[in-house]
Amino acid sequence: MTRYFEEELDVLKQTLLRMAGKAEAMIHMSVQALVQRDIALATDLLSQETEVNRLQLEIDNRAFKLLALQQPMAHDLRLIISAMKISVDLERIGDQAVNILENTKTLLQFPLLKPLIDIPKMAEIAKEMLRDSLDAFVDSDAGKARVVVTRDDEVDALKNQVFRELLTYMISDPLTIQVGLQLILVARHLERIADHATNIAEDVVYLVEAKDIRHHAEEQA
Amino acid sequence: MTRYFEEELDVLKQTLLRMAGKAEAMIHMSVQALVQRDIALATDLLSQETEVNRLQLEIDNRAFKLLALQQPMAHDLRLIISAMKISVDLERIGDQAVNILENTKTLLQFPLLKPLIDIPKMAEIAKEMLRDSLDAFVDSDAGKARVVVTRDDEVDALKNQVFRELLTYMISDPLTIQVGLQLILVARHLERIADHATNIAEDVVYLVEAKDIRHHAEEQA
Repeated sequence: MTRYFEEELDVLKQTLLRMAGKAEAMIHMSVQALVQRDIALATDLLSQETEVNRLQLEIDNRAFKLLALQQPMAHDLRLIISAMKISVDLERIGDQAVNILENTKTLLQFPLLKPLIDIPKMAEIAKEMLRDSLDAFVDSDAGKARVVVTRDDEVDALKNQVFRELLTYMISDPLTIQVGLQLILVARHLERIADHATNIAEDVVYLVEAKDIRHHAEEQA
Repeated sequence: MTRYFEEELDVLKQTLLRMAGKAEAMIHMSVQALVQRDIALATDLLSQETEVNRLQLEIDNRAFKLLALQQPMAHDLRLIISAMKISVDLERIGDQAVNILENTKTLLQFPLLKPLIDIPKMAEIAKEMLRDSLDAFVDSDAGKARVVVTRDDEVDALKNQVFRELLTYMISDPLTIQVGLQLILVARHLERIADHATNIAEDVVYLVEAKDIRHHAEEQA
């Protein structure tokens, strides 16, 4: 492996980490705006989204150049392909944060239904999953990545709980329908974010073990 | 380009087309089950999903081998990368069809709210977009791909219409809340399918013109 190639791979990784940091900040901002009922907490969101989109193109271009010019093999080839795949998930996480902000804007036109408990909890877990999947990527740690995959069920369970609880409100009082609906959509977006973090973790397992765990029952590590 | 390489590229394309056909069939089945109120119309859906998942792994493996062993350049390299990206979108389209079936199962426990008009229309457009994006891929037709990208707005407009109409029902009659909610989620899933078709079309433009149109204002063709 040439020095140049090594350095370029490192830049690719660093760019991906920067992108992941911004995606995480976007989740945080949108959920803070929702919880604190203050849209101003997410004023930076759209400029962050532009930056996340730009970073995705940058990663694609860097990866493409490395593939075209360096003919990488084995682990390096998998690393480059994984970086491209992970960047797609990060970009979509950013989209979901923007969706949450849209729901929040509608929500803030109505009074608070009840203090939000499960939704912030879902957001915390989703952010942790994202962070851990990227840590696993940097450390080439398949074990850590597998833990992320198992946490997807936690988020799904919380989403179902949110869904059931809000439906009860909506049925007993039609005035809560619009708020309930927006909160259900927020919970869905957070579930999607956790799904993307899971995709990233699965890519890390593939990277480290050259083994594809998608679409298979997860084995005990 | 060796004969072997040429044949392998062709197999990759054919596998992708087979996968796309199955994804389209999955959308069709799930929406038919919803419209005809007959879950039996979608009995094949889960076996189709298994097959779609299997095809994605096959495409990934074929693409990886071509990248590792053949060191492709320029258009061929872009073709292989595009095939991998497109397969991710196709797999997620299959997931959305499964989601629609889940919503349908819940829906069928309740009486019909009103004849469905906009949702089948959304499904038709989404299927057309998917078919056209794959045609554009096979024919390397960037013009056709750009048309698909512009149709995304049609689907978004229909989704907003469905959303507004159902909300009106739900607010005026709480008994319609569960059905309304499930139909809103179905509309969301169809919107996501159209988004995936749009992603595919954007990949085709990149493939043909070596130009990335994501995250840019769409120019007039």
